Amino acid sequence: MGRALAGAFLAAGVRTTVWNRTPGRDGDLTERGVHAAASAAEAVAASPLTVVCVVNYDASDAVLRTDAVTTALKGRTVVNLTADTPDRARDTAAWAADHGVRYLDGAIMTPAPTIGTPQGVFIHSGPAELYAEHRAVLDALGGTHTHLGEDPGRAAAYDIALLDVFWTSMAGYAHALAIAKAEGVTARELAPFAQGIGAILPPLFEEFAEDFDNGTYSGAINPLTSAVSSLAHIVHASESHGINASVMRAAEGLARRTVALGHGADGFIRVAEVLGRR
Amino acid sequence: MGRALAGAFLAAGVRTTVWNRTPGRDGDLTERGVHAAASAAEAVAASPLTVVCVVNYDASDAVLRTDAVTTALKGRTVVNLTADTPDRARDTAAWAADHGVRYLDGAIMTPAPTIGTPQGVFIHSGPAELYAEHRAVLDALGGTHTHLGEDPGRAAAYDIALLDVFWTSMAGYAHALAIAKAEGVTARELAPFAQGIGAILPPLFEEFAEDFDNGTYSGAINPLTSAVSSLAHIVHASESHGINASVMRAAEGLARRTVALGHGADGFIRVAEVLGRR
Repeated sequence: MGRALAGAFLAAGVRTTVWNRTPGRDGDLTERGVHAAASAAEAVAASPLTVVCVVNYDASDAVLRTDAVTTALKGRTVVNLTADTPDRARDTAAWAADHGVRYLDGAIMTPAPTIGTPQGVFIHSGPAELYAEHRAVLDALGGTHTHLGEDPGRAAAYDIALLDVFWTSMAGYAHALAIAKAEGVTARELAPFAQGIGAILPPLFEEFAEDFDNGTYSGAINPLTSAVSSLAHIVHASESHGINASVMRAAEGLARRTVALGHGADGFIRVAEVLGRR
Repeated sequence: MGRALAGAFLAAGVRTTVWNRTPGRDGDLTERGVHAAASAAEAVAASPLTVVCVVNYDASDAVLRTDAVTTALKGRTVVNLTADTPDRARDTAAWAADHGVRYLDGAIMTPAPTIGTPQGVFIHSGPAELYAEHRAVLDALGGTHTHLGEDPGRAAAYDIALLDVFWTSMAGYAHALAIAKAEGVTARELAPFAQGIGAILPPLFEEFAEDFDNGTYSGAINPLTSAVSSLAHIVHASESHGINASVMRAAEGLARRTVALGHGADGFIRVAEVLGRR
């Protein structure tokens, strides 16, 4: 991801200095004109804006929160595109404020090959005027950039929620492929129908967002009691082949609990309201 | 669903007789010209083809496997569009064969309002020549119909795998909405980005189907070790708000087990292969 970001800056004509925790990971970037710094402190000192993207905030803390780097960053701006939790983003923003570092937190919602292309999706949070100041440089990364608000944890909150949708869906697809194979159905045979299921999700996401915000959970078309029956069939079919159904068992448990709380005639998204109860 | 099916037959000019376990659920169908039978046996005796769609195979067995109905069905055809497991579909096909009943098993992959429209998706399995014989009448239900093979459990196998994708994705979305709300993000704010995630799923389903069938699991862009980090962030953010993370915890467990088996550099869909190991 770091290489993709630096490559996009380079392609857009932005003077770029790179530093990686593992030396030599910059590929052909140096041949193409990117300066490779010998240390993180040298790298951050080279530009008014530092973009950080590592595996998590333990890793970004290890890079940023050293005396040499913190000193070099004073008065400069960090845009941290590392993915982690909203709490870690807010904690890093507080650290930055304590040390005179100007700080924006962000997330990249699309895979590395989309960086520098119109398909990239970037979200940002933190001081609006700081975002406005660096927006032109950030736009060099391509795609769409959205500033979500001043709370530095807000981009991470969106990121976590969206990754939740993504990875849970992927876990469902992986499980579906395992069941299909046990039933003699290849992934290629299933794929066109799976794509059909994928295609009906976005409009349902929109419809259920309305339901959730409005506190309406119409189950007229598909009540939770009927969903529970479906979930139980999937668990049964999976386990009859010796295939671990832990993800679906957990989903079935949440749905059954929601029915037991009196919401069997509601739509499935009532589960979200029950999950969020304190 | 039964009302939608009968309505579609009626609209297509197919002479239709209905029977429901709960009398009076036929709405305005009788006013529109559908004959309401007084018993299931009378209903199946009225036509060469009987379409069954109830909540599960316990319910369809209770209707079909009575002396009166079994006798009336002899030599006639049943298309069972009830959703359940492949085993139940095969068991019902075996019962049908034992009693001289011609049998096709199917599933409806789209919600009731799509019945009778081009959006409906129907899958069928069982004897090909029986499907060919009744195809014209089934086409009256609208949408696309696909015969998946002679194994009577094959439509149910697809159905289970596809419902797995659907419901797991929905469980992920419900959980995402709960986290977003705890973070002060409304569902409407999240929805456009969630729709973006939904839109990237179909091409990934296609790509991962190739990986799975070929036994290649490239993690070059997104290795499992990195996915595990993502899943752990989601669990942490969820539980820091007191939100049950059981579905994501189960997914994280499968991913960590797959890494522990030596597949950390592979892509996420390696989980499907590990799930399917005997």
